[in-house]
Amino acid sequence: MSRTALIFTAALTLAPCLLSQEGQSLTEQYRDTATKLIDAALADQGGMDKLSYLCDRIGNRLSGSPGLEKAIAWAAAQMKEDGLVNVSTPRVKVPHWVRGNESAALVEPVAKPLTILGLGGSIATPKKGITAEVVPVSNFDELEKKGRAGIQGKIVLFNVVYQGYGRTVVYRHTGASRAARLGAVAVLVRSITPVSLQSPHTGALEYTESDPKIPAAAVTLEDAMLIQRLTDAGNTVTVHLEMEARLLPDAESANVIGEIAGREKPEEVVVIGGHIDSWDVGAGAQDDGSGIITALEAAHLIHKLGLKPRRTLRVVFWTNEENGGAGGIAYREWVGEQIKNHVAAIEMDGGAEKPAGFGVSAHGDSPATLDKVRQIGKLLDRIDAGSIQPGGGGADIAPLMRDGVPGLAVRTVGTHYFDWHHSRADTADKVKLEDLRANIAAMAVMAYILADMPETLGQSTPATR
Amino acid sequence: MSRTALIFTAALTLAPCLLSQEGQSLTEQYRDTATKLIDAALADQGGMDKLSYLCDRIGNRLSGSPGLEKAIAWAAAQMKEDGLVNVSTPRVKVPHWVRGNESAALVEPVAKPLTILGLGGSIATPKKGITAEVVPVSNFDELEKKGRAGIQGKIVLFNVVYQGYGRTVVYRHTGASRAARLGAVAVLVRSITPVSLQSPHTGALEYTESDPKIPAAAVTLEDAMLIQRLTDAGNTVTVHLEMEARLLPDAESANVIGEIAGREKPEEVVVIGGHIDSWDVGAGAQDDGSGIITALEAAHLIHKLGLKPRRTLRVVFWTNEENGGAGGIAYREWVGEQIKNHVAAIEMDGGAEKPAGFGVSAHGDSPATLDKVRQIGKLLDRIDAGSIQPGGGGADIAPLMRDGVPGLAVRTVGTHYFDWHHSRADTADKVKLEDLRANIAAMAVMAYILADMPETLGQSTPATR
Repeated sequence: MSRTALIFTAALTLAPCLLSQEGQSLTEQYRDTATKLIDAALADQGGMDKLSYLCDRIGNRLSGSPGLEKAIAWAAAQMKEDGLVNVSTPRVKVPHWVRGNESAALVEPVAKPLTILGLGGSIATPKKGITAEVVPVSNFDELEKKGRAGIQGKIVLFNVVYQGYGRTVVYRHTGASRAARLGAVAVLVRSITPVSLQSPHTGALEYTESDPKIPAAAVTLEDAMLIQRLTDAGNTVTVHLEMEARLLPDAESANVIGEIAGREKPEEVVVIGGHIDSWDVGAGAQDDGSGIITALEAAHLIHKLGLKPRRTLRVVFWTNEENGGAGGIAYREWVGEQIKNHVAAIEMDGGAEKPAGFGVSAHGDSPATLDKVRQIGKLLDRIDAGSIQPGGGGADIAPLMRDGVPGLAVRTVGTHYFDWHHSRADTADKVKLEDLRANIAAMAVMAYILADMPETLGQSTPATR
Repeated sequence: MSRTALIFTAALTLAPCLLSQEGQSLTEQYRDTATKLIDAALADQGGMDKLSYLCDRIGNRLSGSPGLEKAIAWAAAQMKEDGLVNVSTPRVKVPHWVRGNESAALVEPVAKPLTILGLGGSIATPKKGITAEVVPVSNFDELEKKGRAGIQGKIVLFNVVYQGYGRTVVYRHTGASRAARLGAVAVLVRSITPVSLQSPHTGALEYTESDPKIPAAAVTLEDAMLIQRLTDAGNTVTVHLEMEARLLPDAESANVIGEIAGREKPEEVVVIGGHIDSWDVGAGAQDDGSGIITALEAAHLIHKLGLKPRRTLRVVFWTNEENGGAGGIAYREWVGEQIKNHVAAIEMDGGAEKPAGFGVSAHGDSPATLDKVRQIGKLLDRIDAGSIQPGGGGADIAPLMRDGVPGLAVRTVGTHYFDWHHSRADTADKVKLEDLRANIAAMAVMAYILADMPETLGQSTPATR
């Protein structure tokens, strides 16, 4: 008898008052199953082997790239090998942006190459490049204060100190159009990261319809601060920028889908996954190789242990999360009327550092729903991953959540994720074996129980269904 | 009356027993002076302005490069502007290694560019490059075990986990010759750093006379681990390496020397400084722009405050520390017989993170010497920089120390120094204003008192003089 089973027996003997009216709590019902899943996950090697293959042998996989096509084919084959059924790769049209060659250099007051990464979606510069004075600003207010008189014909540098990803990324998303509105000819954006070793970070920009499109590139923290120091010292700083980036016609891509069929209610679905595409630098290891591999290996372990959930557990690798979101939208369309049978969706797209728990958004975040998930969370306290907080979801499951599907997100300690995110440093070595295992454990337990528990999360708050 | 002076008076009144036979301790004698120096240093802006100019406008400065020549001219002019006298730039012949173009890529089992930096002093590859299987080893024992049978014709990867700089750098220094001895055609060395964001770190290698010279380059931690994973997964890993590195005839360079002349014993000298050269990437900000600027600004503040030490305080910016040490040797020669009048030498070559104190090597590390320096150290407790430990010195002052001059080294907390060292990330932003100020304070107090105190460190242990 395992130590955990012993404790479980003791609890049953000593504390019958813990039982709810309808019977046992989810914690009690699933203690043995959770123990098995966690034990298997903490000894798992298959997850890391798959992640290494994806990152090391296939590499990065931007929408439209051969890398993504290879990854999709490999993932479908791997799902079958891992015992999933109904494996399919429904086609999805995705934007096809390519970086091409790119470079930037200080011209005045000193000649010096800069380290850049063009932003995803940026247009090219003219062939001979753009040479212009740089105007650094530390926020949009400063930009607006400078107005057209200060910005016209200039390159704007958004030298914005990192204040957390969510608060800072707006400069990458909207900076180009806001500067273009005042006559800027290009923008440089300080990379959205707390730390740097001359490390540029790319990511998508969003041009408005109404403003001129101008080229945009990320610079390193070091280069942003250099330009700021030179400007503060009274110099006119001039930069030469060359970018060949261009948008090709939409490319064919696909979501990758596989299932563990439900034993009792196969039409009801719990969907788990992440996105299979990545940026075109690094290996997309944390973002989001770790998410898709965690979901796949969780399902694989459930299958290997011979566990058959009441409902269908569906693993989805969405395509094109990074620069379009076409995979998430296409999946919602593919589901059609069956959306009513989606009882929960879990997205993992925050990397596989040590897991902390889950965020949950469901039915107006009712206390009853949260309480059910917390009963499951208790089973993850053993690996310190049992913290259940209101507020979850993800870009790929947002279309499902908009139609009422409860959405969960894996939460981690998040110590270094944004140091690596969208950069050349997002490589397989950044994912620690013990952390990946713990994520697989957390995902397997949460997914299995959501798919197997007698009532769904939704049924607990019928008023909102 | 300042708060410190008040405390000093109180101490004199209340604790006469603290006075030594010869009179006051150094702590007591110099409390007011130290307060003035620290106050000035903690408000200093000139140090950071000079460091920014050196890093941002002149940039890196490898021996033989135009950057180093510019830096030497600027430094001599700056010393004069800062009130130093007897400014001179005695010429020094230095090795002139140039990197040229360089690249490496995985060829098998997957095509992928690697991120490298050739090691300083490396020879070139043949023009068409070297393509060979890579054999990773994690230490010299593993290399020796593989022997000629395992190494002949291969590229050796020293994939050695960082165990502190001193213990790990031996693989960069000697790995090429040790692998060549067994027939290797090139070596890759995992960068000597605890952390990486795809960041290669260069540094000098040392070929033996007796072994064939083979090309050697640093790879990033990421790429070293990638090659290891691919090998461990059963793949034959093949790399293509191209390097144009070459050694040109020795170049003209110079040490830069300036003084605050001693008021009473001008022939006796306390020398302080660091090295003006750097590697050819980044800006040599921490290594060792911060060291030379700290020494210069310390002297500048002493001058500005009108302090005239008993002995001469000499600031020296040594050339060619990184790949030859010619500056330190030339300075020793330049000093000649006057070595007997060098009463102490302080080198700062560990970066300007928050200072912790000084290391001291003098006269067999006698307790009496250490005690004197500790009396000075007490004056730095205010800025948490008063920890005096046995064991100090530096590459540039080693030739002085070999001839009996007491050697000191500035010690810092050393949290991130080797994250930046010899890499593109060693830029001015890495030096924090408050830390630079504290280093200037520590250097000014230690240097001034060593130059002014009635007895020298040496005189305390006549048996060894």
